Amino acid sequence: MNNFFFRITHTDKHSRARAGVFRTPHGDIHTPAFIPVGTHASVRGVAPSVLKQIGVEALLANTYHLMLRPGADVVAKLGGLHEFMRWDRPIITDSGGFQAFSLGASIEHGVGKIANIFPSEPPRSAGRLAAPPPQRPAGGNKKSFVRITEKGVEFRSHLDGSKHLLTPEKSIEVQEKLGADIILAFDECTSPLATRAYTERALERTHRWAVRSLTAKKRRDRALFGIVQGGAYRDLREKSAHFITTLPFSGFAIGGSLGKSKRDMHDILAWTIPLLTENKPRHLLGIGDRDDIVEAVARGIDWFDCVAPTRLARRKGTVFTSTGNLNLTQARFKKDRRPIEAGCPCPTCAAGFSRAYLRHLVAAQEPLAVELATAHNLRFMTSFMARVREAIAAGRFAAFRKQVLRQTSRV
Amino acid sequence: MNNFFFRITHTDKHSRARAGVFRTPHGDIHTPAFIPVGTHASVRGVAPSVLKQIGVEALLANTYHLMLRPGADVVAKLGGLHEFMRWDRPIITDSGGFQAFSLGASIEHGVGKIANIFPSEPPRSAGRLAAPPPQRPAGGNKKSFVRITEKGVEFRSHLDGSKHLLTPEKSIEVQEKLGADIILAFDECTSPLATRAYTERALERTHRWAVRSLTAKKRRDRALFGIVQGGAYRDLREKSAHFITTLPFSGFAIGGSLGKSKRDMHDILAWTIPLLTENKPRHLLGIGDRDDIVEAVARGIDWFDCVAPTRLARRKGTVFTSTGNLNLTQARFKKDRRPIEAGCPCPTCAAGFSRAYLRHLVAAQEPLAVELATAHNLRFMTSFMARVREAIAAGRFAAFRKQVLRQTSRV
Repeated sequence: MNNFFFRITHTDKHSRARAGVFRTPHGDIHTPAFIPVGTHASVRGVAPSVLKQIGVEALLANTYHLMLRPGADVVAKLGGLHEFMRWDRPIITDSGGFQAFSLGASIEHGVGKIANIFPSEPPRSAGRLAAPPPQRPAGGNKKSFVRITEKGVEFRSHLDGSKHLLTPEKSIEVQEKLGADIILAFDECTSPLATRAYTERALERTHRWAVRSLTAKKRRDRALFGIVQGGAYRDLREKSAHFITTLPFSGFAIGGSLGKSKRDMHDILAWTIPLLTENKPRHLLGIGDRDDIVEAVARGIDWFDCVAPTRLARRKGTVFTSTGNLNLTQARFKKDRRPIEAGCPCPTCAAGFSRAYLRHLVAAQEPLAVELATAHNLRFMTSFMARVREAIAAGRFAAFRKQVLRQTSRV
Repeated sequence: MNNFFFRITHTDKHSRARAGVFRTPHGDIHTPAFIPVGTHASVRGVAPSVLKQIGVEALLANTYHLMLRPGADVVAKLGGLHEFMRWDRPIITDSGGFQAFSLGASIEHGVGKIANIFPSEPPRSAGRLAAPPPQRPAGGNKKSFVRITEKGVEFRSHLDGSKHLLTPEKSIEVQEKLGADIILAFDECTSPLATRAYTERALERTHRWAVRSLTAKKRRDRALFGIVQGGAYRDLREKSAHFITTLPFSGFAIGGSLGKSKRDMHDILAWTIPLLTENKPRHLLGIGDRDDIVEAVARGIDWFDCVAPTRLARRKGTVFTSTGNLNLTQARFKKDRRPIEAGCPCPTCAAGFSRAYLRHLVAAQEPLAVELATAHNLRFMTSFMARVREAIAAGRFAAFRKQVLRQTSRV
């Protein structure tokens, strides 16, 4: 286990927030951290050299997508994900289990991980969400793409309709072949609309899959994280946290439905985290809004992955600033010579690209728009996380958290 | 006129090839040069910093597209194209006249600038070709989008159907507002299928437009180039060359239909170029294949613009190597760990991205594929042009030309 080491360097006096470093064979992740998503082994439109320049320390790639294309054996043959995508810093892969939700119940129920927040939008936390197949857009009462049994999850590929069986053993095998530093136990992410009875049955199964995932793990140079499930049910979350901590995982991820509101999410974290082993890292899956980040950090989360910063930039031309988001498609930016944010050290602002030019690139559907907007948003996130860490280290996290909540509620 | 200066440094003994430097207010263009196209003030997917790193010395942007979006006044208000797109090296704009062909006769006749080479393909030399509107794809017998009168060309915008009148005066005004270093006289690019009578009438009109373009020009920090037309008719090409050289243009562009074969193109260049003023630069519009480049350089052309290297990379995953083009979509690259070309100094090959990874990015429609493939092809072109210049300087252009023709005929 000496390939990995988590050192907590600072703890907050007024909350469960902590700052630290997680050491992996491919370098350190300073925590709390935001981890961008590179679904197909690429953060859409941004070269690894630019990600490094931006201060990104780790990426998350999606097992489900990569096992379908180009295939785990292909990636292994090419030397693993780091070599394949030319990224020499830490990589996390998810287990593929999230697709049991995003291609299954999420489509059937037409909901995301937090049921009521975006009723008319595709599932939230889409970092771990497969793009819904074109012929079956997200929405209620659609036919599920998956069948879940004790053995595992039977998928139908969203690419060609071919059938695939993902089991705990298979997920770990695929993840070990892909070669991420941090891999996740195979789990079922239940829908916020699932009954208590179903959520409990799924949880028990996920616990059995956790044991099978650990047994299947062969390589010592991969850190396997256990996933706490249990939906929005306090006793199930507690049961899950108790069980998962008894197993020799290198860290934990909080997965599954996070309830019907931000308050529910806070409750779930407050119930769960105190039960987890203190000196192991905790990953909150698929969450990345700044208010959610400070609230989760206050409850003891160490890192986050989320597609929001990249997806918003790419699909909506939405870029982050300290005074709120800008939607670059708006006419008011047509002649705006200013950078996205004055003084921003991101490659986009530093090179002097104006809001007007970015708006033009978005309107003309120029691919450079994706790179420039995404790079800005990711730099914004790495800067934000650096400020989170500094606030914890300096003993002023409570004030920082208040300030962030004030700002984000105004936006 | 001292803002611009063309110095011929070397001339070939066995052909009309020459090497030199064209000085502009935004820096030098070493000739013969290949000039990438940034239709909407962006080379699709490649940031200006990367273009510089690749050795690109100048770009060509499209007046027609930019006058429609974001509009010449907007670009002027934002400080001109250089400031707008953050490119501090020379820029060329075309006159918009090419769209009289690409949205007019090219669509009616279903042909490109060289009629018979790609009978089933969209018009060639697409550097100066508007993307055909989706509802009216390129092909024969479609309704034209333009009406040509003595006054100018009436367009219907391919974006929103709105009507626009482009005259020589308007074209020069728009180009001066856009702020390119080198601007082109307003011309009509006739179809290879136009009759001799029509081609002659169009030529006479283009000559009157050339005079009007010169009269309309106000700024001394723009070099205005005249365009030689005349289709594939020797006497018309000669007439045009004679007439255009009598006018005080800073250089010349060879435009219009280049006949029905590469041989026709060679003939047209051989008829035309000896009649042009020796110490002024000559731009062959919309041509960029390597065999065409050496043949045109041998006949006295100084620079080229063409979308082929960028468009092939972007749309087809086609990348250039010294031993022929690779189509990255092919299955044979699935596990190919090699870079596109061993020893290639482009950012893509130098960073170690494999053919297998590029194939994966193309298959997954990842935007990074566009950047990486385009950057490689452009670096290939700048390297190729450097070799053209070196061969001329070293007195071995004849051998170099033969070698290129041998290689490209094999491919």
